[in-house]
Formats: sequence, structure tokens, C-alpha cells
Amino acid sequence: MDDFLIFDGAINSPEGYYASGVSGGIKKTGNLDIALIVSDPPAISSSVFTRNIVKGHSLLRSMKLTGRFPCSGIVVNSGNANACVGQDGNNDADEIAAIISEALSCRPENILTASTGIIGRRLPMDSIRGGLIKAISSLTGEVEGGHLAELAIMTTDTVPKESSVAFTAGGKKITLSGMAKGSGMIHPDMATMIAILTTDCNISQELLDLALKSVVDRSFNRISVDGDTSVCDMVTLLANGCAHNQQISDKGSRDYRKFLKALEIVSTDLAKSIASDGEGATKLIEIRVFNAKNKADALAVARAVAKSPLVKTAFFGEDANWGRILTAAGYSGAEFDPEKCEIRLGSISVYSEGKALQFSEAEAKDILKEHDITITIDLNAGDSDEIMWTCDFSYDYVKINGSYRT
Amino acid sequence: MDDFLIFDGAINSPEGYYASGVSGGIKKTGNLDIALIVSDPPAISSSVFTRNIVKGHSLLRSMKLTGRFPCSGIVVNSGNANACVGQDGNNDADEIAAIISEALSCRPENILTASTGIIGRRLPMDSIRGGLIKAISSLTGEVEGGHLAELAIMTTDTVPKESSVAFTAGGKKITLSGMAKGSGMIHPDMATMIAILTTDCNISQELLDLALKSVVDRSFNRISVDGDTSVCDMVTLLANGCAHNQQISDKGSRDYRKFLKALEIVSTDLAKSIASDGEGATKLIEIRVFNAKNKADALAVARAVAKSPLVKTAFFGEDANWGRILTAAGYSGAEFDPEKCEIRLGSISVYSEGKALQFSEAEAKDILKEHDITITIDLNAGDSDEIMWTCDFSYDYVKINGSYRT
Repeated sequence: MDDFLIFDGAINSPEGYYASGVSGGIKKTGNLDIALIVSDPPAISSSVFTRNIVKGHSLLRSMKLTGRFPCSGIVVNSGNANACVGQDGNNDADEIAAIISEALSCRPENILTASTGIIGRRLPMDSIRGGLIKAISSLTGEVEGGHLAELAIMTTDTVPKESSVAFTAGGKKITLSGMAKGSGMIHPDMATMIAILTTDCNISQELLDLALKSVVDRSFNRISVDGDTSVCDMVTLLANGCAHNQQISDKGSRDYRKFLKALEIVSTDLAKSIASDGEGATKLIEIRVFNAKNKADALAVARAVAKSPLVKTAFFGEDANWGRILTAAGYSGAEFDPEKCEIRLGSISVYSEGKALQFSEAEAKDILKEHDITITIDLNAGDSDEIMWTCDFSYDYVKINGSYRT
Repeated sequence: MDDFLIFDGAINSPEGYYASGVSGGIKKTGNLDIALIVSDPPAISSSVFTRNIVKGHSLLRSMKLTGRFPCSGIVVNSGNANACVGQDGNNDADEIAAIISEALSCRPENILTASTGIIGRRLPMDSIRGGLIKAISSLTGEVEGGHLAELAIMTTDTVPKESSVAFTAGGKKITLSGMAKGSGMIHPDMATMIAILTTDCNISQELLDLALKSVVDRSFNRISVDGDTSVCDMVTLLANGCAHNQQISDKGSRDYRKFLKALEIVSTDLAKSIASDGEGATKLIEIRVFNAKNKADALAVARAVAKSPLVKTAFFGEDANWGRILTAAGYSGAEFDPEKCEIRLGSISVYSEGKALQFSEAEAKDILKEHDITITIDLNAGDSDEIMWTCDFSYDYVKINGSYRT
């Protein structure tokens, strides 16, 4: 069967995964701030990391280990990015892994680490040590534990972001789940995006890497909240083989295509959820670029529109301001003829052949009132398409990001 | 003498220039919206235009004429960008030039045109015709008329932007004046920046072009309000030779260096004034990048910091948030070692050698309370420096840009 069952799961829904979310005293509010995900048996792992040349210490540690050592678990803390604190930060990440690996009777290199939060402050290790012990004793295969793990990685997120899908490959039921945090670097420097994905699929390391790279490029790399790339962005995918399907190792196979599709469903769902829950966001805006000269041009136009503060504030104001969309496309660097391109807001064509079109402001207002809005830009310059998601820019974005660290 | 006298002048302060600013019924408020600047005798002209591939009709017309025909005058209207309205827009720009040229007994190609305002709406030519006649009859060499011309090109600007300097070359007194409008594309699509510069200097066309290009690159191209490049950005410099100095035609000459310096004084003054008066701005932020690997890297870092909504909202909140500055530098694409760079806010060093530094929050607060703030980023990666100016990002930016067109 070619069906994909999308269901309300959690990060520990696939076979062999256990999760917990506890308070380790990092957040002053007492909110959950340590998430632990464990795979028994150990999983293979693949990760994609921020391209920012400034990188957090927990992330740098994971960069050295992912894909090279079996992964027994991953610890994520929120509230502190463990970044820009010098050698202490490396030591703290090592100690966290050591505590967890000792409890799980594995080696420190089997434990991945991730952090998100304030930049430039040391982790409060005294209270974290106790938190880690609590996280281990709270591990569970129950979905409630998975939900707690998600809560423990959130910072200014207003809604949890979890997505699960099940499908069959080689006659076996495979489950793939993900959880993520967004979105906007925040009060004061919450280092944006972390996504953890788990699956019980049996798949080769090579194809796991290939699948993650290609799917991240068209999901997590297709969202923009404020254009800022954080020092802790990280997506990690674990696969532990507990579904006992015949290993997927041929990239031309139907099973690999199904795995890819399942990964895309979960990743796109999480990515859109991050954009939709961008700091202060009131709307999710989908930007579709059609018929660009090439892929790079299509993406350049989508990115320019997605990042333009003028476009984003106009949507916050529910203003059918296509001139700003055209202007952003015009400075994107893409080659196209403005006289030949068309812009649509929802189903309404507003600009075509170098001219503003007459349209009903009332009809436009109805479209702009919706939470989900689609902008279509047809460049008529080739046959490449791209899609991106962004949110609007509101008073609350300024409020959230303009507030004092202290 | 090497002195440059900076004085309170207007666009018609140099010899041989006349100006007026009138209401032509374009702005619903009845505010001034047509500026006319006339040079008698005709001037040579040089212009720099937006690199946006979408361009307004008035600007496209000027692109064909500047530097090729003597310039007797330039008409600038605000309130309507004359952009994206098809062939009608070209005809309207032609008609405006024809009305002015007939009154001045010159040819239409001796008149340059510029427009700034709403995109996608036709100019109200019926009322503009009357406005143009009024503009001609109001022409004056008095500084008050020059100030009115500046008022007539403003859109959401909150303060007029004028700058004048006098110096001597070849024993003659030379005056160079400028006026500009900013800053942020606005309600609904005020097409950002227009600057007009006038001088009575006698200078060759070749050096006029060279001077303008090099000075624009380090003044108007070094400011960022929201990162959006409009379809009507335009800087035009007129030189009519009325100072009767021996023509400046040698780029190695002392007189050319003095001209360049005077042009830089006026252009930088106007550019900083545009950044400082960015939409909703409460602060002017100067970003100094030192010791980059090369000029391109230095500029990339300055631009990334100047454009980051996270940096800009933090300054609005008077928050010493150096983590966002480092993060922006980190994703700028420039090559440097985060472990070797240093960040200073005003005189306070906040980050160095890969680590947050202890600093007095009270002292930082004092610096951040000021209107003018300097960020220094020393990359320690080479010997190239760059400088940019930007403003903070406030609630009012969202308010101004989120409001309805209608």
C-alpha cells in the first residue's frame, strides 16, 4: 500500500524509543528545560547543522559524533544556548553526555547534545546534574513522555510542534516522528531551530544521510521568520531498525521513495508549524514562485519576498500590497521581465504584464483576513518552481525581541 | 585653503539654481508634492539609479537622458511613484517634462523626472498640470524656495534633509548642496530614496560621473533602513559651472580631491540623516567593521548586522545584545575566526576571544540610551574596514508599514 497515516504521536512513538522532559533549573520560570530521547537498541544518526560560522558548544560536540558512532540518546536543553563561553562550554557538554552515558551503560560518544537559549552564559551545571538524573528516571515509551520532551525544548514557542506518520515498507509497519522548536532568535538570544526526528525504519547510513539532506533543503530550509540564522540550528534524525523491515539501501527502490515521502511529510509539517508560530506571528504565508529561469532564481525570489520586512508588515496589516512583493522580487537578483510576470494573492490576480490590475478590495480583504495566505509569483522566465513559508511581522515581534535581557 | 564651510543652505544655494515646491493635488492631505529645480545656464548631470529590475516610469525616462543632454531642470513629485502602470506612466512622465520644457524654452530631453510614492496608480495628471505651472511661477533663488522643494519630496520623512558645503577651487568659491528623502518604502509603497545634488562647480562630465559613483558607494549605499531596495531610488548631481573656476578635468588634481571631499561631506550627511529618520526609528546606529579579510567581507558583515531585525529590535529595546551581532556576523558569509574577533558597544568591549566579557550593565545602558550608537566589530582577519549606518526597528515601523493602503 502507498498510504501514509498521519497521526497524533510523539518523538517516542516509533518502536524502541523512550523520552522524558524535566525541569533542570535552567529556566528561571521553573518550566521544563531538559529533554532526553533514548533509543534501545542504539540508532544510526544523521544531522544537519547551522551554516553560521559561530557555533554553540553542544552543537560542535554533536558535529563530531553524528553518523560516526551509534546513538543511544540525545539530550537537548532549552533556556541556555551553551554558546560563546569558551572551553567551559565544551567541558559542560562533555559532562552532560558523560552523566547520561554512565546511566545508560554506553559510551559518551553514543550521546548527542543540543542546546538552545541565551548566548554567552555558562550552563548552571549544579542544577542540571540533578535534572539529568530525573530525566533518566522519567524515561518512558508512553506518548505523554514524548510530549513532555517537546515541551522541554520550547522557548518562545507558543504551541508544541510534533508530527508523526506511519507507512509500510517490505511488509513492515514503519513509524517516523518528529518534534521541533522555533522560531526567531529570542529573549535574548534563543538560538532558533532544533528538530529531532526518530524512526524505527531499517535503513542504511548512506541513504539516511541522503534523505535528511534532501528533505531538510525543501522543508526546514524553506522557512523564514526573520532571516537570522542561529548558532545552534540543528536537525537530527535517528533510525534504530526496530521495524525489522529489510534494510533500505537502494536509492532507486520504492521503499526508499516511501521513506523519503514520510520524512518530507513530517519535516514539512514541522517546518510550516515553526513559520506559523514565528515570534509574534499572526499568519502563515506560503510563497509560490513559478516559471523562474532556474531553481536558484526561483529560490532567490521566494527568499527575498519571505524576508522583506515591508511585505511582512503589510500582511500583518492585511494590506493587499502587491507593490512590495514585486519590489522584493525585483531586487532578489533573479532574472525576469517585470512586464511578463504575474502576482496573485490567493486566487486574485493583482499584477500582470507590467500593470496593476483592477481587483475588488473587499475580496482581497477576505483573503487577507485568513490565517493561511498564499502568494503566487509567476515569473514567466523558465520552468523552475520553488516554495517557501514565512510569517507576518507584528508589534509583538518587536515587543518580544526588543525586551531587555536582564 | 583646505577649508570646507558647512552651512544651512538649500538646493538652490549654488549659483545659477532656482527652486520651488508646490501642491499639485497628488497627496490627499494637500501637502506639497511637486518640487522643481532649475539650472540657468543648463548643467551637466550624472545619476545613479536603483539596481532593482523593476523601475518606475519617471526614473526610466531619466535613465535615458542623464549625462547625455544638458539639464535645465528636474521635476520630482511625491505621493505617487509613477510605477507599474504601463505605457500610460511613460506618457505621463513625458508630458510633465514637456510642460516644464515649454515654459523654460528648452527641449523635453533637458528636463529630468523623478517620482516617489504609491506603486501601481496613475498620476492625477489633471491636477498635476496646474501644479507644474504654479511650480514654474514660484521659482526662486531664495533659500526659502529651496526648503519648499525639499518639503515637496518628503513622504513619511519626519525631518527635512538638506546639506550644503562651500569650498574654494582654482581661487573660486564653489558651493555644493543636496536634498534627500528617505527612508523605508512606505504607506503603501513610497519608493524609498531620492537625492538631488547641485553645484556651481565647473567640472568635466567624466569626473562628475566618477565622483558621484565613488561617493554614492560609500554614503547612500552604506545605509539600510529595512533592506528593501525600491523601484525609484535615484541620486542626481547637477553641475552648471557658474563658479567660473577653471574646469576640473584631472582626477589626480588637488581640486578634484577637494570636490570629492565636498561631495562626500554632503552625501554622507544626507545618508546618515536618512538612516536616522528611518521609519519609526529612534536611533542612528553606526556599524564599524575593522580588519576583515577583504573589502567584500567587511561590507558583508556590516550589511548583515545593519539588516538583522533581531539586532535592530534589540537596539530599540536598548538591550546590550551582542550575541545577535556576533550571530549576524557569523551568517554574513565573511571568513573570520569567532575565537579571534572582538565586539564593542560604544567604548565597552563585550565579546573577545570566543567568550562573553563581564561588563557593567549600567554603563552599557548609558551608551544604549543615546540616540547615536556605535557598534565596532574587529574581525582580526585582515586589514579591510567598512562602515554602515542603520536605525533601530520599533513598534512604529510596524505601524507605519502595516497600515492599510486604502
